Amino acid sequence: MITFRKAQASDLPAIVAMLADDPLGAAREDASLPLAQGYLNAFNAIDADPNQLLAVAVDGAEVIGTLQVTFLAGLSRKGAWRGQIEAVRVAGHRRSGGIGRLMVEWAIDQCRSRACGLVQLTTDKGRADAHRFYENLGFTGSHIGYKKSL
Amino acid sequence: MITFRKAQASDLPAIVAMLADDPLGAAREDASLPLAQGYLNAFNAIDADPNQLLAVAVDGAEVIGTLQVTFLAGLSRKGAWRGQIEAVRVAGHRRSGGIGRLMVEWAIDQCRSRACGLVQLTTDKGRADAHRFYENLGFTGSHIGYKKSL
Repeated sequence: MITFRKAQASDLPAIVAMLADDPLGAAREDASLPLAQGYLNAFNAIDADPNQLLAVAVDGAEVIGTLQVTFLAGLSRKGAWRGQIEAVRVAGHRRSGGIGRLMVEWAIDQCRSRACGLVQLTTDKGRADAHRFYENLGFTGSHIGYKKSL
Repeated sequence: MITFRKAQASDLPAIVAMLADDPLGAAREDASLPLAQGYLNAFNAIDADPNQLLAVAVDGAEVIGTLQVTFLAGLSRKGAWRGQIEAVRVAGHRRSGGIGRLMVEWAIDQCRSRACGLVQLTTDKGRADAHRFYENLGFTGSHIGYKKSL
């Protein structure tokens, strides 16, 4: 029985381990314990922000997936709220079992319940599996996502 | 002398007019006065959120440009904050004069001052001029941006 809920501080090591267990994340993250202070600071900022929802998928007591939803107010589209999904990860030993799909559908429901008119996300151009995954969920890859490191 | 500042409620008609004066925005926005309540609600939500910055470029008393920056906490990249730029517009009669570049550079400085590790944005695949513009500003189009209407 897989359920979804807001993440708690005690979920952080499992979440960071999933972010690091990824071809792109491996070079960017540090899942060693105790976790780097940056992760704790970021969790506290997310947790305190009513427009942020860091979520986990759990099977019993085990954290098996994570994602982050940000609810964004904006003037465009006559002032429509948008939901933005990021950092979607499923634990390595549970991939290809449909958990990602359930989790993203749950996230879309959260956006609906906040009256968002649109859900948006970006994925690296190299993640071909992710592109099929989001297209199957009804997303359209209509935009180019630009990044600049500071 | 062009300056940049946080938008005020009195700037809203000029901002919405710029959002509507755009090939994609024309079908999505309604700049008629009084403005639709959705715009006022969105402005109030943005204005009340310390992680949102709706900005305008002004020349004397005239509003000639706008953009929105959202400061996003996230766990990825060891808890790095990201700045997200959206809804970048320059008034039609002031385009091609370098105002967009000054405005985005100002927005990037705002992200630096908030200690963001990354600035991100998406543009529609059809906006070829925008792609060159952001590449010239040092952005890399490494991602695909997916959208789903609700």
